Amino acid sequence: MLVALLGCGNVGAALASLLVERSHEIETRTGLRFELAGIAVLDLTRPRPAALDPALFTGDAKGLVERPDVDVVVELIGGLDPARTLVESALRAGKPVVTGNKVLVAQSGAELAEVATANGVDLLYEAAVAGAVPVIRPLRESLAGERVLRVMGIVNGTTNYILSRMADDGMDYAEALAEAQALGLAERDPSADVSGDDAAAKAAILAALAFGSDVLGTTVEREGITAIRAVDVAYATRLGYVIKLLAVAELVDGGPDVSVRVHPAMLPATHPLAAVRGPFNAIFLEGEAAGELMLYGRGAGGPPTASAVLGDLIDAARNLRSGAHAPAPHRAATVVRPSADLRSAFYISLDVVDRSGVLAAVATAFGAHDVSIRVMEQDGLGGEARLVFLTHTAREGDVRATLDELRGIDTVERVGTVLRVVEADDSTGEPAT
Amino acid sequence: MLVALLGCGNVGAALASLLVERSHEIETRTGLRFELAGIAVLDLTRPRPAALDPALFTGDAKGLVERPDVDVVVELIGGLDPARTLVESALRAGKPVVTGNKVLVAQSGAELAEVATANGVDLLYEAAVAGAVPVIRPLRESLAGERVLRVMGIVNGTTNYILSRMADDGMDYAEALAEAQALGLAERDPSADVSGDDAAAKAAILAALAFGSDVLGTTVEREGITAIRAVDVAYATRLGYVIKLLAVAELVDGGPDVSVRVHPAMLPATHPLAAVRGPFNAIFLEGEAAGELMLYGRGAGGPPTASAVLGDLIDAARNLRSGAHAPAPHRAATVVRPSADLRSAFYISLDVVDRSGVLAAVATAFGAHDVSIRVMEQDGLGGEARLVFLTHTAREGDVRATLDELRGIDTVERVGTVLRVVEADDSTGEPAT
Repeated sequence: MLVALLGCGNVGAALASLLVERSHEIETRTGLRFELAGIAVLDLTRPRPAALDPALFTGDAKGLVERPDVDVVVELIGGLDPARTLVESALRAGKPVVTGNKVLVAQSGAELAEVATANGVDLLYEAAVAGAVPVIRPLRESLAGERVLRVMGIVNGTTNYILSRMADDGMDYAEALAEAQALGLAERDPSADVSGDDAAAKAAILAALAFGSDVLGTTVEREGITAIRAVDVAYATRLGYVIKLLAVAELVDGGPDVSVRVHPAMLPATHPLAAVRGPFNAIFLEGEAAGELMLYGRGAGGPPTASAVLGDLIDAARNLRSGAHAPAPHRAATVVRPSADLRSAFYISLDVVDRSGVLAAVATAFGAHDVSIRVMEQDGLGGEARLVFLTHTAREGDVRATLDELRGIDTVERVGTVLRVVEADDSTGEPAT
Repeated sequence: MLVALLGCGNVGAALASLLVERSHEIETRTGLRFELAGIAVLDLTRPRPAALDPALFTGDAKGLVERPDVDVVVELIGGLDPARTLVESALRAGKPVVTGNKVLVAQSGAELAEVATANGVDLLYEAAVAGAVPVIRPLRESLAGERVLRVMGIVNGTTNYILSRMADDGMDYAEALAEAQALGLAERDPSADVSGDDAAAKAAILAALAFGSDVLGTTVEREGITAIRAVDVAYATRLGYVIKLLAVAELVDGGPDVSVRVHPAMLPATHPLAAVRGPFNAIFLEGEAAGELMLYGRGAGGPPTASAVLGDLIDAARNLRSGAHAPAPHRAATVVRPSADLRSAFYISLDVVDRSGVLAAVATAFGAHDVSIRVMEQDGLGGEARLVFLTHTAREGDVRATLDELRGIDTVERVGTVLRVVEADDSTGEPAT
């Protein structure tokens, strides 16, 4: 099996090393012998791993894909262009493609899947969501007949590392971010991670697999973690919650409408996702028959992500040899409901002037929009006070209207952090009744 | 696709209901239309779910399997006979088989896989380990090229429920077992679960998939949980550990030799498996490239297990239609090393006469066998005392020799619970360095 590798960053280099150094072991285990046809890179002058023959490297990705002896193409360039053109031309030439490119799959996955099916070859992308964690294959195969109700994932290691440090060690956001950058867990420009953009692409991919939704990564509603303060984290801990950035895809009111979104949320400390710390990723799934499932592991890094690519590569090669190919993902016309329509409990923090009558004014605003308060705490801060509320379940649109009204009250200095609260449910390990 | 269903207990009935009630939805999602050819049961007089046509039931399993219009056979009878004969005859007739029968796969999986391969059809058994949790498919496919180092699973919900209640609510073993029985989470005769026999069959299946080992379920070394007392659980909690019954398959000293075993162990409270409570199951995997993975969910119950069977059924039907079949599991000649050769830290509790000189005698016995003590605690109990030790890493054979010598000391009244201790490692969510 001659493999054309496009891109040789962390993951590409780790995959190339696996294919070169473990070729014999892989052949013993799978009966498949992989060889690199070539490695396309942008910069031919950059130093590369010593185990890789320098003659493999080329600046001509298009030429490499079109080489008639190439059997399978692995795309690890990232981004939309030129990845999309290269992947499409490989598929049209009857060559299966393995990619770890979340942006490409989130934006063009449905079209490319059609091209793959029309040409009778595989388009596999296990590495595009949650690195080494098997997520795509379980959704496509193990749960092919399952009625999935909800998928909630911690799919961004950078933000999870930052939130873990804030919760476990009392750091504030800037301090935790700086540490993550120093450790190489956050980019110098962290905006794609901390804004939720990276997670939004993954949410779109999960929605497509779970519900057949045709939602583009760029259109997923998102909120990042930049507004979360140490006091919010401390408050969550005190109440038995953990704050996590979640990518969510779920049926609304039992379906067929869906919600696809990214936002930080307060999870009960007993929730399986609450224990996912540091750079780890996890996908929590709820199926009608299967119940709760969680798939956990390393979401990034060269070797873990390369391991997922290798699994796909073996699958694609087996299918190529037997003339079969992975089933086309199920697609369905689903309506994506805006978050304003959804119902949730909320955490809301307000900075107010410490004066009598403030709470009455605030409570009146909540009441006017049918948002009922479950818990309120007040901390004096000299001339100011901080009010923190947990609401009962309310329509998000009503909560937003409440916030708008609160902003208009002159004793409310500032509407602080607003977080959705995931309620404890039977996924906490209590016996089913 | 005409399905012959053998067995109609909890899982069989749940699967039959899924196939009848969700047939249309499954067809929309997968393009496959399943219909029940018949359901073979031992007792035709027992009441069955109302959704199932009484005409489907038959006492003649062999006749049902041999019906020429049957495409796929699902075996949910359990046990070795007649399941083995029925499965084998289906495979020889070119009919793929889906089974949830752990005893059959642990004892005859390798032979039956050969029959399946020789006849070009699938033998799939996702439901045989950890119910709804996708474990078999990730090991066979996602990790096909991965060098697996270790698999540790909580694969028995009954014992996990008992241990969770002991840890979370201070119950003693008998009380927790009685509650599990009352809730239907333990059998009236719980011996197969609490002795570790059930987990041993699953350990053998995991070893076969991860390492190609040809180890029979009946030969797996095992220890159950019946000796664990409330005081052991309390002590573990105080030191930051959780006691879990583990099925382990791992490379010894980097391989190729393996260890396959079942025993309770003390896990650090920060270990991902430590949070698996109540009736849930989880498989924790360590791969050379992939790093740590965990797959979590409901390990038993009709609908969850039926969901796993349905996933396999769809896979088998797709393959049957395309003429492909799942790759035969990799097999390798591996030596299974006895536990006496392994190294681990240990928890050891001793009841002794409360008299001066006892500790010196005990410490001498430890020293004589190169077992070094890391922590010792003593609790007075009137004329008796309880000594509790945590050792440094030691050879298990040396620990057993120490215990034998301790039993010969006349001031040692009783060697109590002995547990392996899993050390904290990088799987606790610290940043990789």
